[in-house]
Amino acid sequence: MSEPADEFHLYDTTLRDGAQREGIGYSVADKLAVARLLDDLGVDYIEGGWPGALPSDTEFFRRARHELDLKNATLVAFGATRKAGRAVEDDPQVKALLDAGTSALCLVAKSDVRHIRRALRTTVEENLAMISDTVSYAVAQGRKVFLDCEHFFDGYRDDPGHGTEVVRTALTAGADVVVLCDTNGGMLPHDVTEIVTELRAALDGTLPAGKSVRLGIHCQNDTSCAVANTVTAVKAGAMHAQCTANGYGERPGNADLFAVAGNLALKLGLPVLPGGGLAKMTRVSHAIAEIANLAPDTHQAYVGHAAFAHKAGLHASAIKVDPELYNHVDPAVVGNDMRVLVTEMAGRASIELKSAELGLDLTGRPDVTARVTSKVKELEAAGWSFEAADASFELLVREELDDTVPAPFSLESYRVIVEHREDGAVVSEATVKVRVRGERVIATAEGNGPVNALDSALRQALQRHHPALAEVELADYKVRILAGSHGTAAVTRVLIDSSAEDRDWTTVGVHENVVEASWHALVDALTYALAPAPAAR
Amino acid sequence: MSEPADEFHLYDTTLRDGAQREGIGYSVADKLAVARLLDDLGVDYIEGGWPGALPSDTEFFRRARHELDLKNATLVAFGATRKAGRAVEDDPQVKALLDAGTSALCLVAKSDVRHIRRALRTTVEENLAMISDTVSYAVAQGRKVFLDCEHFFDGYRDDPGHGTEVVRTALTAGADVVVLCDTNGGMLPHDVTEIVTELRAALDGTLPAGKSVRLGIHCQNDTSCAVANTVTAVKAGAMHAQCTANGYGERPGNADLFAVAGNLALKLGLPVLPGGGLAKMTRVSHAIAEIANLAPDTHQAYVGHAAFAHKAGLHASAIKVDPELYNHVDPAVVGNDMRVLVTEMAGRASIELKSAELGLDLTGRPDVTARVTSKVKELEAAGWSFEAADASFELLVREELDDTVPAPFSLESYRVIVEHREDGAVVSEATVKVRVRGERVIATAEGNGPVNALDSALRQALQRHHPALAEVELADYKVRILAGSHGTAAVTRVLIDSSAEDRDWTTVGVHENVVEASWHALVDALTYALAPAPAAR
Repeated sequence: MSEPADEFHLYDTTLRDGAQREGIGYSVADKLAVARLLDDLGVDYIEGGWPGALPSDTEFFRRARHELDLKNATLVAFGATRKAGRAVEDDPQVKALLDAGTSALCLVAKSDVRHIRRALRTTVEENLAMISDTVSYAVAQGRKVFLDCEHFFDGYRDDPGHGTEVVRTALTAGADVVVLCDTNGGMLPHDVTEIVTELRAALDGTLPAGKSVRLGIHCQNDTSCAVANTVTAVKAGAMHAQCTANGYGERPGNADLFAVAGNLALKLGLPVLPGGGLAKMTRVSHAIAEIANLAPDTHQAYVGHAAFAHKAGLHASAIKVDPELYNHVDPAVVGNDMRVLVTEMAGRASIELKSAELGLDLTGRPDVTARVTSKVKELEAAGWSFEAADASFELLVREELDDTVPAPFSLESYRVIVEHREDGAVVSEATVKVRVRGERVIATAEGNGPVNALDSALRQALQRHHPALAEVELADYKVRILAGSHGTAAVTRVLIDSSAEDRDWTTVGVHENVVEASWHALVDALTYALAPAPAAR
Repeated sequence: MSEPADEFHLYDTTLRDGAQREGIGYSVADKLAVARLLDDLGVDYIEGGWPGALPSDTEFFRRARHELDLKNATLVAFGATRKAGRAVEDDPQVKALLDAGTSALCLVAKSDVRHIRRALRTTVEENLAMISDTVSYAVAQGRKVFLDCEHFFDGYRDDPGHGTEVVRTALTAGADVVVLCDTNGGMLPHDVTEIVTELRAALDGTLPAGKSVRLGIHCQNDTSCAVANTVTAVKAGAMHAQCTANGYGERPGNADLFAVAGNLALKLGLPVLPGGGLAKMTRVSHAIAEIANLAPDTHQAYVGHAAFAHKAGLHASAIKVDPELYNHVDPAVVGNDMRVLVTEMAGRASIELKSAELGLDLTGRPDVTARVTSKVKELEAAGWSFEAADASFELLVREELDDTVPAPFSLESYRVIVEHREDGAVVSEATVKVRVRGERVIATAEGNGPVNALDSALRQALQRHHPALAEVELADYKVRILAGSHGTAAVTRVLIDSSAEDRDWTTVGVHENVVEASWHALVDALTYALAPAPAAR
């Protein structure tokens, strides 16, 4: 893990503040997968959760120590300053935070007098002591400390002197950055400019020797200005921006990482997401949406499927000749594509990028790229999505590269029965009839659900000819119902995460019937498990 | 129709620029319905379309003359300046525009030298003449004229002198307001402040007597800053803001009318949407989404269903005591409600708040609150989630309040079969055996999946005794697989959204078997559909 650039931090809190969005509930494996994507993208810090407060977050940090090998980012554990009236070294919440074992911590503190008195029920003085004690204590233990000032902007408006004092106290105690949070999300850009500028002027020259005014920004989207407020704070001198992937978060959400990164890099010229990260934004955005089990936002700035989609109309030819006159940035720079006609999805640029990612080199093979692109377009129009399903995508590309992965069997038929019996028992049973290496095999198995029964029956049918499948585990299973359009029925999309030894892979299946969609994903999963290495890799 | 206030215009272009959003296709009746909603909301101007360019827009203006009785708003027809090299009185597009018969017009003109030369293929001088001629001609015919400067900000950056000249020309020719358009959406708030401020200074004192600098703003959302840029332009002196309902529009869309109006009224104190319009925003936003046949954006600022939804947890008691500390504005002011999500950290305070929201008063019933809290905790530990499932939560609370909703039937057994046959056909069939009002009923149905088959069979079994169920639609179906923990198996959580007439509700079911989980949610959905009003409400 390299030390992140220290002039500017892109700080991600998808896994902590972003997880507050209604309906999001990551498993620990999901969180590890999101962290890997964010690291690959190139953010500087990844806030992983609140150890001690949530058992699954404690578990995440425990597993992260062994399973996360971050290349760009530093993992951060989030927690609160010590409790009022308790010594910091005796505070179990602070202990749990340090026990997470991360080199960087983010502490949240109250900075609005009204919250200190009415919600925290303590005094302004004790609150400042809580900040000072906890920051010093963590710094003394060798940790880098960020301090989030909750409700900073509202508090500053109410009492600017106190707001300034909170920031001064934290910086003096050794905080690396003090983060100004618009927790209720009520600010507009001119408020942010005014308050950040005034605060910097008030702090200027008042800190102990060796300390400098390093401010961060954390915005919520309640005025629909979270991205603008974040960028505006950076223009006003903040050097640390807290964001979440796709703007996920409580209420209208947080500042969207991808829009903030795009704006900072392409409009303000800041070196965020170095090493090609910008071009991965579209793919990473969609992959995180898949893991969160949320539909990607088609109209999201920079990374949405429609972000560069022009309803051609009158200007079609002008757009074709001079696309730079009609796009605020080159879509390829953020891994997206311009679309002129009303067509579905993926373009060649992202297909090539993704293939390269999988070790399948399509450069110099425009014929293959064209065929894969057209096949992906057709499948995506029918509801398939390859953003998270790398294994299914690899199978598809290899087929077009004449490096087809052999099917381990052929299906004759299957049948699944689910019964809720008179005694209340719920039972699932599946029978598959397949041909494996010339032999016809029939197998029946029970399971705790229809897909589990089908999976068991299929493995049983294949085990004699493909003993390696005994190692393969079905690690996770996600289902999304996609609304129909243009008179078509709704379809079900299933994603299956499989693992074996040190590998894991994801496959996809789509059908109006959830069992058949699962079957497709299952067959891809087992096919991929047995696949020889690609010829081209 | 009253004359709109002339100090500030809230100008809606949902029906013209907003209709550029991929997937939107309004009928003329749809457009009339949207116009009535916008008028009732209280916008000053409604841009209805481009007569002459689109036959359905011509038809809209024809019907609007007889069928639209606007109380607050003025209808505006949109069109372009005359063609290069043609006299304005001979231009059929200008004629069609005037023939629409509206008292106000909006003309679009090019203002970026590169677009004038490369897309329009004319000279800067001819373009200025096109603006001057068309504006004067329409003003001479008694129309109020707004002039949209397409690509204004990009053009101004490229050639500020020319950008200024375009605005001066239009104001001199009699345009009421000249609208600065960030057509490609690439600006950030500080760009807008800088350019608007500089432009105003350059125009100051250079207009003919009697003309004043009246500027408007039109922003696209490509940097995720459309709302911020709009508000920022107003701060910098623009007195006319062009927006679309829900931010609908091409690519990432336009500035959202509701967020802009909320910010202007509640943050800047401008008198937009007078006469109670603000309180109608949430309803109008959702109604327009319905007409556009798009799902309302749950996380939209001000008007989204989750805009004031708090994952309560640790702070539930503080939120209950001091809601104003946690909301940037009072949700009721914009016609929305605060919601407290019943999360895994649910405590008594959030249970009471949530119940009160549903009209179930638990104050003074600590016994009931305690029982509900303990039941919710137990169910949530098993994977249930009541965050979105208000109907299931209400059924649960009413049971503890001794106001149990009667079950419409009792189950004996069900069986679902899914077959993938030898010919490739996938078929689902369900049989239910139930008792309804003493009668034993057996019903079998097919479906496009196991849950659909089960739903059909159950409705068939119940229809004679509960004809009201014929009205209930299964509107959406969501599935989430929850990873097991502490040695338990993974479970499946199903959420079902149902609707009937003007109501909609969500129910939840959890089981290791997806079919059984769906069954629970389905039974709750139908039970709730038939529920009498709560005794306590």
